[in-house]
Amino acid sequence: MNPRVVEVPASMIRALNAKRNAESIDLGLGEPTLMPDIAPFEAATRWVAEHGCRYTPNVGDPELRAAIAAHYDFPQLARAENVCITTGSQEAVYCAIKTLLDPARDELLVVEPAFAVYVKIAQVEGIAVRTVSMSAADGFAFDPEKILESIGPKTRMIVVCSPCNPTGRTISRDAVTRVAKALGDRPGPPVHVLHDEVYREQIYREDAGWFAEVYPQTISVNSLSKSNSLTGLRLGWVIGPSEVMPEIVKMHAWTTSCASTFAQRVALEIFRNGAIAANRNWYRTRRDAVVAVARDAGLTFIEPDGAFFLAVRVGGDSLRFALELIERKNVIAIPGAIFGDAFEGWLRTSFVGPPEAIRRGYEQIAASSMVRGGSQQP
Amino acid sequence: MNPRVVEVPASMIRALNAKRNAESIDLGLGEPTLMPDIAPFEAATRWVAEHGCRYTPNVGDPELRAAIAAHYDFPQLARAENVCITTGSQEAVYCAIKTLLDPARDELLVVEPAFAVYVKIAQVEGIAVRTVSMSAADGFAFDPEKILESIGPKTRMIVVCSPCNPTGRTISRDAVTRVAKALGDRPGPPVHVLHDEVYREQIYREDAGWFAEVYPQTISVNSLSKSNSLTGLRLGWVIGPSEVMPEIVKMHAWTTSCASTFAQRVALEIFRNGAIAANRNWYRTRRDAVVAVARDAGLTFIEPDGAFFLAVRVGGDSLRFALELIERKNVIAIPGAIFGDAFEGWLRTSFVGPPEAIRRGYEQIAASSMVRGGSQQP
Repeated sequence: MNPRVVEVPASMIRALNAKRNAESIDLGLGEPTLMPDIAPFEAATRWVAEHGCRYTPNVGDPELRAAIAAHYDFPQLARAENVCITTGSQEAVYCAIKTLLDPARDELLVVEPAFAVYVKIAQVEGIAVRTVSMSAADGFAFDPEKILESIGPKTRMIVVCSPCNPTGRTISRDAVTRVAKALGDRPGPPVHVLHDEVYREQIYREDAGWFAEVYPQTISVNSLSKSNSLTGLRLGWVIGPSEVMPEIVKMHAWTTSCASTFAQRVALEIFRNGAIAANRNWYRTRRDAVVAVARDAGLTFIEPDGAFFLAVRVGGDSLRFALELIERKNVIAIPGAIFGDAFEGWLRTSFVGPPEAIRRGYEQIAASSMVRGGSQQP
Repeated sequence: MNPRVVEVPASMIRALNAKRNAESIDLGLGEPTLMPDIAPFEAATRWVAEHGCRYTPNVGDPELRAAIAAHYDFPQLARAENVCITTGSQEAVYCAIKTLLDPARDELLVVEPAFAVYVKIAQVEGIAVRTVSMSAADGFAFDPEKILESIGPKTRMIVVCSPCNPTGRTISRDAVTRVAKALGDRPGPPVHVLHDEVYREQIYREDAGWFAEVYPQTISVNSLSKSNSLTGLRLGWVIGPSEVMPEIVKMHAWTTSCASTFAQRVALEIFRNGAIAANRNWYRTRRDAVVAVARDAGLTFIEPDGAFFLAVRVGGDSLRFALELIERKNVIAIPGAIFGDAFEGWLRTSFVGPPEAIRRGYEQIAASSMVRGGSQQP
């Protein structure tokens, strides 16, 4: 067997979620419980009845690619040729990292705390990884100077997930501009920014920044999973510079041929109807409610700028805490350590489940926690 | 960029198909034109309306895995734990090759003529490839002795596509038994057989063999693409030994997380209703008709045992022939050279388009061909 595949561990999040039973309070979720709009499925089914369900081009349906390019209208990345439709943002991330980095010489810089899969993909591909940790003292705010200082001579891609899984922080417009300017001024081959925008429609402040708006060497990945509560549809996309897209598309063709034609029809309906932002208010209401609940429970936490996670400080060994929380209280939360060393002592909790269960979950965490106090965000 | 991704060329088939226009006669298709049954889509849509469209476990829906395991009932591979649901058989092939072979020491043996993607995946992964060509003089019949003689000390996987894309030949039960016996008798680590069964439901003779029925180290991959005319659904699976499945599932999770929940519901409907074999007669009728047409046209060709391809001998440079056929006659067919050296001088033609167009296409090929004569199959 391939030793790299064997050595990189499977997802801890999935393993913890597997401990769920009917009575569990589940704060471990990486997906909303909101029901999706069924109308796009009905429209896609009618379309299949009329047209069948044949391959699209590897790169995706031309109309959907054009709709996505036009929707985001990123300067220099605004044409259909900048868009490839993928099997969720997972495949977009996989193909982007695998295609754009040479394992023999390039290095990936991951801004942590971060979803563990970026590092795992690099490890499986034999790509060197460097990490830079945002500071707990600063509520894990994205620090452009720290990111820039961490770029080494071999760095060819920086991964930024904003809104952030697991911290809920967003990188500001100013910070994005600062990083983009510095990268643009560097001599030598470009350093790509892989901006994972999958929580883009869960945003609770005005000053969030988007690399693709100011930096043409951005690879933007996104999907319908969180915005439209369609994690199971597996429909995502990667937007990037014209000169690298044909290579990413080749890799995508070898992994999955093309994205689902049915899912692409669902996506086309959603983009035609401007429904990508349809659930923003639902998320904002949940976010405001959970901040109040966490404050009432006396937790130390970070007020989310975006995404649907509340980072809660519990102190000590987060894996042990999470395992005991499941065993003793039947509450599932994700230990911070798996998102990078800087997040040890924290839990990632998601607030997209039923509100009353969430309240009880946070009360149980507060009762078990070694840390008390209010919001840690400035 | 990753030099391996850059160096391996994109699909020639897709490039040739891109030359199609409204008036083209298309014998280049890799997918049926048969319309799919819409009932499973309607049922899946109702299911989503009731349950949402959330992730399944990485490995797939438990009920679907059990249904697939039970349907094939392969000895020693008949449990749900032997099945992982994938984004089409493409992802199944990708994850199987990538997971089971160590690029530092293992070698893949590809039985040619074969779909080019097996070799390309190995090249992208840095895995050494050896090929063994079945003989044109023998109508590309699968030759177990030739396959066994080609196994080297580093060979850890043999890829067999049967029914075969592009030749339409099937490997016989006797040949499978012969190969399985020899592999089972070998000392040392197992040599896996990756049996691509994607054309399993297009079968025109009784003696076709299936490795998974006699050889427990088989990795069987398949999908709904051809059987149910659902290439655009991207729903496939990999069936393999229990000891390797968890590693394949990890790789699958990193590439795409999980297969589409919607597509898995469609698949569950199809397996519940035994509809995987629903179109066998449609294919057989087409196959019998095309053999008559090819004979009438005076072509040299191989009578298909399975799949929906007619291998036609045209002589000379097949790429040049195919390009001239498109330019001069507006007939699309796939040059044999891309399936391995042994298939140079041949064309892969598919007979799943409209019958009258197919007849005209074969007449044009016959008019351009340097080779004349009847069926080449014994």
